[in-house]
Amino acid sequence: MSTRSKFDSKLADLKAKLLEMESLAETAVRDSLSALINHDIEKANTVIDGDDKIDALEHEIHDKALLLIARESPVAKDLRTLNVALKVSSEVERMADMAVNIAKAAIHIGQEKHFKEIRDIPKMMDQALEMVGMSVKAYIDEDVMLAQKCAEKDDEVDNMFGKLVHELISMVPENPNATNQIIQLSFVCRFIERIADHSTNIAENVIYLVTGKRFELNE
Amino acid sequence: MSTRSKFDSKLADLKAKLLEMESLAETAVRDSLSALINHDIEKANTVIDGDDKIDALEHEIHDKALLLIARESPVAKDLRTLNVALKVSSEVERMADMAVNIAKAAIHIGQEKHFKEIRDIPKMMDQALEMVGMSVKAYIDEDVMLAQKCAEKDDEVDNMFGKLVHELISMVPENPNATNQIIQLSFVCRFIERIADHSTNIAENVIYLVTGKRFELNE
Repeated sequence: MSTRSKFDSKLADLKAKLLEMESLAETAVRDSLSALINHDIEKANTVIDGDDKIDALEHEIHDKALLLIARESPVAKDLRTLNVALKVSSEVERMADMAVNIAKAAIHIGQEKHFKEIRDIPKMMDQALEMVGMSVKAYIDEDVMLAQKCAEKDDEVDNMFGKLVHELISMVPENPNATNQIIQLSFVCRFIERIADHSTNIAENVIYLVTGKRFELNE
Repeated sequence: MSTRSKFDSKLADLKAKLLEMESLAETAVRDSLSALINHDIEKANTVIDGDDKIDALEHEIHDKALLLIARESPVAKDLRTLNVALKVSSEVERMADMAVNIAKAAIHIGQEKHFKEIRDIPKMMDQALEMVGMSVKAYIDEDVMLAQKCAEKDDEVDNMFGKLVHELISMVPENPNATNQIIQLSFVCRFIERIADHSTNIAENVIYLVTGKRFELNE
């Protein structure tokens, strides 16, 4: 194999690992919210325990990318591609941490009956996970347009977050016994908003990868 | 200059940048809480605006470390040192993000009179910032003992966090009009607890740097 195709094949391996990691993180996020909604403590614990595997994948991607940089001394776009692989894996790892946080909130709430039906939080999570899918696809395909579209959706999630937390807080006076639950749910909203932020960060990195310039897509 | 001393001098430059970044992040964290305590919206905005400089430093450290890896093809401990420089700068950048979050909470609370004196949150922050100082010093000096001591303190901060949020929640029924403020303060406690977590992550990286093995110091 030529040096070029060896490099490309190692890069393809890294991208495959990233996709595997992203898929695990996405499942963890979905499972954490389902654990919360269904008072499923066992599932919450599975999410928490599963985080080690995602952390290990991040370390693996990180180490392999640095070894590849050290051995092949890539320049320009090849170096940026590996640079961005490091960033993307770190953002995905942070998304998985949010799943762990949501799972911990589910455990905190435990078997306590929900003071109202949890309907809007899953909608917000769907939006955030759509952004995750878009941003990672944008990275794999080096698609700047898709990265931009992803970042634009962040405002929607921010608005949903603001509205939801405001609503939750306004319910405290009528539900003083549910204060702990309401605070936990506010935290959960915040964790989901963070997942959307991580996607925006990935989108920014895609633009850097393709153009060589750094942009802040969403302040 | 020999290749070795060139490498060492570039590494020393990187470490100096990291210390500069850490000092800015620490100031941002202190200023954000002081903005909250003193209803100082101008200071809160200064913290938010100052984050760009910290982000830029992280990019600079990241790019320089990768270039150094690509050009010098370091192995073993030299490669780990650069690997960990990347990780440390990323953790410090995330600490600075917590300062921005606290500053935003200060703006949310605005001129609203505090429903009680804010006394325990600064104590928790002092603990977290002590950990920050310890972890970064441990990295610079490659001091495993100090890294371990830092990680041990994380439990204290976690306990303070749990206790403080519990106290805050329990005050809601008697202070229904302060619910928004109480939620904001709970978020602030969480941001401070995250700062301590980032220090623990730095401490883990110091142990990896020195020993070549990855440990989870605090789950």
